[in-house]
Amino acid sequence: MYKLQTMLKPVLYFDHAATTCLYPEVINLLGEDFTHHFANPSSSHRLGHDLSQKITSIKSIFLNTINANIEDNFYFTSSATESNNTIINGLNLVSGDVVLYSKADHPSVVFPIENLKEKNIEVISLRLLKSGQFDHSFLEDILSKKNISMVVLSQVNHQSGNMYDVKKIAELIKKSSPKAHVHIDAVQAYGKIKTDVSKQIDSMSITAHKIGGPKGIAGLYLKKNHQIKPLFVGGGQQSGFRAGTENYPLVNAFREAAQISLLNLSEKCLVIEGLKRNIEEHIKKNISQAMFPFTETSPYILTFIIPGISTDIILRHLEMKNIFIGTTSACSGRIKAFNPTLAALDIPEKFHKNILRISLGSSTNQHDTSLFINEFLSTWKELSYLIK
Amino acid sequence: MYKLQTMLKPVLYFDHAATTCLYPEVINLLGEDFTHHFANPSSSHRLGHDLSQKITSIKSIFLNTINANIEDNFYFTSSATESNNTIINGLNLVSGDVVLYSKADHPSVVFPIENLKEKNIEVISLRLLKSGQFDHSFLEDILSKKNISMVVLSQVNHQSGNMYDVKKIAELIKKSSPKAHVHIDAVQAYGKIKTDVSKQIDSMSITAHKIGGPKGIAGLYLKKNHQIKPLFVGGGQQSGFRAGTENYPLVNAFREAAQISLLNLSEKCLVIEGLKRNIEEHIKKNISQAMFPFTETSPYILTFIIPGISTDIILRHLEMKNIFIGTTSACSGRIKAFNPTLAALDIPEKFHKNILRISLGSSTNQHDTSLFINEFLSTWKELSYLIK
Repeated sequence: MYKLQTMLKPVLYFDHAATTCLYPEVINLLGEDFTHHFANPSSSHRLGHDLSQKITSIKSIFLNTINANIEDNFYFTSSATESNNTIINGLNLVSGDVVLYSKADHPSVVFPIENLKEKNIEVISLRLLKSGQFDHSFLEDILSKKNISMVVLSQVNHQSGNMYDVKKIAELIKKSSPKAHVHIDAVQAYGKIKTDVSKQIDSMSITAHKIGGPKGIAGLYLKKNHQIKPLFVGGGQQSGFRAGTENYPLVNAFREAAQISLLNLSEKCLVIEGLKRNIEEHIKKNISQAMFPFTETSPYILTFIIPGISTDIILRHLEMKNIFIGTTSACSGRIKAFNPTLAALDIPEKFHKNILRISLGSSTNQHDTSLFINEFLSTWKELSYLIK
Repeated sequence: MYKLQTMLKPVLYFDHAATTCLYPEVINLLGEDFTHHFANPSSSHRLGHDLSQKITSIKSIFLNTINANIEDNFYFTSSATESNNTIINGLNLVSGDVVLYSKADHPSVVFPIENLKEKNIEVISLRLLKSGQFDHSFLEDILSKKNISMVVLSQVNHQSGNMYDVKKIAELIKKSSPKAHVHIDAVQAYGKIKTDVSKQIDSMSITAHKIGGPKGIAGLYLKKNHQIKPLFVGGGQQSGFRAGTENYPLVNAFREAAQISLLNLSEKCLVIEGLKRNIEEHIKKNISQAMFPFTETSPYILTFIIPGISTDIILRHLEMKNIFIGTTSACSGRIKAFNPTLAALDIPEKFHKNILRISLGSSTNQHDTSLFINEFLSTWKELSYLIK
């Protein structure tokens, strides 16, 4: 009998900004901890007590990785969405307070901030230039007129990949509004580029699943002496800041992923930057229509527009070849005609269906990148007749 | 050279109500899913879409396990604490509303409900008899006087092990307050005894880590057409009910743990009941002081008092022999002189330091139980001189 030989192509995953594959070391550690370290860290007996102490040590490790003071606080949450919501709702802002943010930021920042309007809190979206960078004159104008209570900034924009000098912006804000709480969403930065809470940053969200760790565990840095109302209450875990059984296996997996990611960070960053430039140059050379609006972007994210062809079609053709890239942020769901994040990034609506996000991870290598470039360009050739 | 021979005693874990060890099948599945199914279910490509569809199917499986209608809703959260808080805060109760609960319930029910008082919501704790069962005359008296907006009941009390006929109580409440939202905390019941949302139950919390699944994943059943304000917002996952990257590996592990737990539930329940009775009879026979106040308790939980000797001392001596039992609930933290849960269970304060909770899990067997009984009684003999 004739047997069909299936020629499976290797998976080329270039959607690391949505989520990454886990480090093999992390998967092994999870297996070990789920087997041996399953106890409840709140239990009165030794099994619980030992895990509770281990979690305390891991918090110190995380504080150290972001150059925080050892007396500051670090909490574990279930996601960066939870971390961002905890800060934005937990500061207990009241009518008359003014909040700065960017509509181009992640929905877990934008939606809770826009909900603050119900409490008569003034929320002001910072203006961006066509490059995706901040319009500093707009910011300075706001600062000269308003006393700011809270500002939320992303260190790396999840969609455009734009990097922001959050330390410098925080300093600028604190000069005119010294009591402003500065919160940084460092989800696309931590473990990829240098993150530092410095003196001016009051809180910061980071997450495991963007850096080779499991989903379901994230972190929230909070400077000493800052009071935040918890999102939910119960058994008083994590000093009453975040109720819910503490999760040693996921916490330890997050630590492992963070420590692997941070090892030789600058060197790895340079390698990834090189791979990204390689992809960018090949696309520029072969697809004359391609537009790269964003400047000063993360080495891990390459976002561009190919006018006249729907992203959806490119995605479908790539996935038939086992190649996976992103379009809008995964958290913005399926492809829509109008995308508020892209609008805030000053991308005209007619291009919202034409945007592609290629994102790299620490596991991306030269071999896969070369294969990807070849496959991407050949897919482009197959589809270019569709260009209107 | 002389080499010390360490005689490691086997671990006898009898604190399953705090958390359970994971089923080996669940650990294997986690390893597989963390390796191969790491994609973001919100991604636009096939890897994301496939996982999203799998999660939808798993929701139907869970609805089926609690005898719910297939059109009802089931959401995944990070913990039962989050599930309970979501319902209690999300119903948007207002000044004048009346809430029934029990102060003997889990802190993740008690604290968010008591916080409702800030909004001028009347909260009434149901009265318990010395047996830990509800004082029905008190309940009927309340129902004759008040229109109830929400009632939160535990199917099994986490501390005493008391089982409650929540279906019957729900029916009684709905007869006089048809619009009351009835929420059940089924954390200590689901996967151990029969749970059924029946017609009268509007929402229910369940969790994975009490039934051989991982920590970090829990469930919230919500009847069709019920509106709940989410605890946090962002990327619109789970139909906007609960933002945050969906966690396929943990969701699938929860499903596996639930399906293993529910297989031959009644037969397993009878076996565990037998093991528990065995422990109880040996303690009654050998420790004349021991008091067993609670009636109609779960087969999985045996809670009792030995007056005159601090639980803490018994715990320390047992853990030296690698035996681990509970005292108060893990979520009530370390042993304290006064325990509000025990007070609500009508246990005089002088006994709060004398309470022990032995809890069994699906992995508990006859061999371990016999070893446990022998070790427990010999520890008792070593310590009985301390009895005042």
